[in-house]
Amino acid sequence: MNKSIILKNRPSGKPSLKDFEFTDIKKPKAEEGKLLLKTLYVSVDPYLRGRMRDEKSYIPPFKLNEPLESMIVAEVLESRNNNFKKGDFVSGMLKWQEIQISDGEGLNKIDSNSAPLPAYLGVLGLTGITAYLGLEKIGKLKKGEHLLVSGAAGAVGSVAGQIGKIKSCKVTGIAGTDKKIDTLREKFNFDAGINYKKTEDMKSAIAEACPEGVDVYFDNVGGEILDAAMANMNKFGRVINCGAISLYNAEEQPTGPRLETVLIKKSLSMQGFTVRDYAEDFPAAIKQLGQWLKEDKLKYEETIVEGFDKIPQAFIDIFDGKNKGKMLVKVS
Amino acid sequence: MNKSIILKNRPSGKPSLKDFEFTDIKKPKAEEGKLLLKTLYVSVDPYLRGRMRDEKSYIPPFKLNEPLESMIVAEVLESRNNNFKKGDFVSGMLKWQEIQISDGEGLNKIDSNSAPLPAYLGVLGLTGITAYLGLEKIGKLKKGEHLLVSGAAGAVGSVAGQIGKIKSCKVTGIAGTDKKIDTLREKFNFDAGINYKKTEDMKSAIAEACPEGVDVYFDNVGGEILDAAMANMNKFGRVINCGAISLYNAEEQPTGPRLETVLIKKSLSMQGFTVRDYAEDFPAAIKQLGQWLKEDKLKYEETIVEGFDKIPQAFIDIFDGKNKGKMLVKVS
Repeated sequence: MNKSIILKNRPSGKPSLKDFEFTDIKKPKAEEGKLLLKTLYVSVDPYLRGRMRDEKSYIPPFKLNEPLESMIVAEVLESRNNNFKKGDFVSGMLKWQEIQISDGEGLNKIDSNSAPLPAYLGVLGLTGITAYLGLEKIGKLKKGEHLLVSGAAGAVGSVAGQIGKIKSCKVTGIAGTDKKIDTLREKFNFDAGINYKKTEDMKSAIAEACPEGVDVYFDNVGGEILDAAMANMNKFGRVINCGAISLYNAEEQPTGPRLETVLIKKSLSMQGFTVRDYAEDFPAAIKQLGQWLKEDKLKYEETIVEGFDKIPQAFIDIFDGKNKGKMLVKVS
Repeated sequence: MNKSIILKNRPSGKPSLKDFEFTDIKKPKAEEGKLLLKTLYVSVDPYLRGRMRDEKSYIPPFKLNEPLESMIVAEVLESRNNNFKKGDFVSGMLKWQEIQISDGEGLNKIDSNSAPLPAYLGVLGLTGITAYLGLEKIGKLKKGEHLLVSGAAGAVGSVAGQIGKIKSCKVTGIAGTDKKIDTLREKFNFDAGINYKKTEDMKSAIAEACPEGVDVYFDNVGGEILDAAMANMNKFGRVINCGAISLYNAEEQPTGPRLETVLIKKSLSMQGFTVRDYAEDFPAAIKQLGQWLKEDKLKYEETIVEGFDKIPQAFIDIFDGKNKGKMLVKVS
């Protein structure tokens, strides 16, 4: 019994359970140079929706009828590779499969004593690194500036906002429930929060929360919230286009106000950010994030669903904002 | 007799002659520390349309019933300021007025032996500097890359394209008449030109002209041509949002496809560029441009209309693309 999840259909609009299929494959054996891995924790992330489309992007699309993959924490059951030994914990881009073989390439050994294993898929994993490097490389956030974050209660947004506070910035977060807004203020130390689902005029709401304007906007959602943020940017403001979850399920080309005149008038920049472009900066990012975590300057939230069978539903639930912080599936 | 042109109405849509009014004011006298200036050449530029709106931008709006202003080359008729003497030629932001007083602040002395006077409003003036610094500061154009320029036969675009060629790049230009396209290729050394008025599918036309994709897009027009360029950008491409002449006369907020997903997918940047933000780099820019001009590496075109009374019409004509290269009015 070794379950695997394959992409059955390319989703139309919001993904549904029928787009995924469970198959049962033979338990593999590790040949010379290989590792046998047991999946422990699976990260489910909005960007995976993009890979389900058959189109060119920064990462190749998933193939139909083949296993899906995402960032996973696994345990080494057997090693015939000198770089790893039985009992090691590793993280890397791995298949949605209970037991699998790897040649070790792209895997990182992780230390379960420094931080709990799931943290390596969140605050010390790609999402935390995304927040850190987005602000460093694109946002160039400086002390005293005003940082606006959308998807602020999410895995990336909550770390981005906290880094803003560590850098002595004013931080406003946008999220979709009052409970999330409370968490932003109470747990993550944000200065202000806006529940966009209860706000008719986002432009005015941002203006009220950021009376001195916005210097850096960390955008995880795109769409109308981006438009409202643009109207509040200060001269020389920087927009980190990290995600556009509000558009990912759109089947037609979404339209909106043209932004080129406001870019020119206020000397703004918008820059698409994909953390994989900065792989050489990952070790420094993880070191800094780990340090802040130890100093208790960085809090995080996780929503951990249990059971390998729950992976597709957990992925679908992200698009309804059912997660608090990083969405993970604990497999065993 | 000392004519001055004031803004009578804020234009609605495309400016018309009734938005301007000529007044006749007394010839002023230069007090201690001041200069008496005679206007020789007046630059008319698309960005002035923005200043005719009553809204906050990088430069304050024109006031109703007060003289308009733009970059002007003038002769010093009388000087009671130690930095200038009678007979000097100067360039600077001055009023649309035949004779005027200045305190000398913001004026540059120019040398009529190094280059013809009108060149200081074009290739050696703000438009040339805009092309040079846009590519340096925002585009970060590198040898061998593919540069796409819109408004390519215009004052900024034609210099931008030629700098691309000087930097050993492939350069494609977009303009609105076959004659302009010929000029791009024959006079300005562009590799390819696209007449957007005769092209139904700009996205495909750009793909054909730039089979290896576009690395830097110098955008002077915005709107649908920007959309078509975005579809052809290479990973890590840079868009210099220098102008958006296709939108300047719009009375309602223009809409178009949302660009945030393509920004993310291809790690693109879009950055609003206003040359005034880089005033400290002007001397170096003028020096480099002057050097290239001397070496005959830089050609330029001008459309010179004669007569102070023609200033408003010359300004209006820009929006119909009636100019070839820099549009100027020779006053006397």
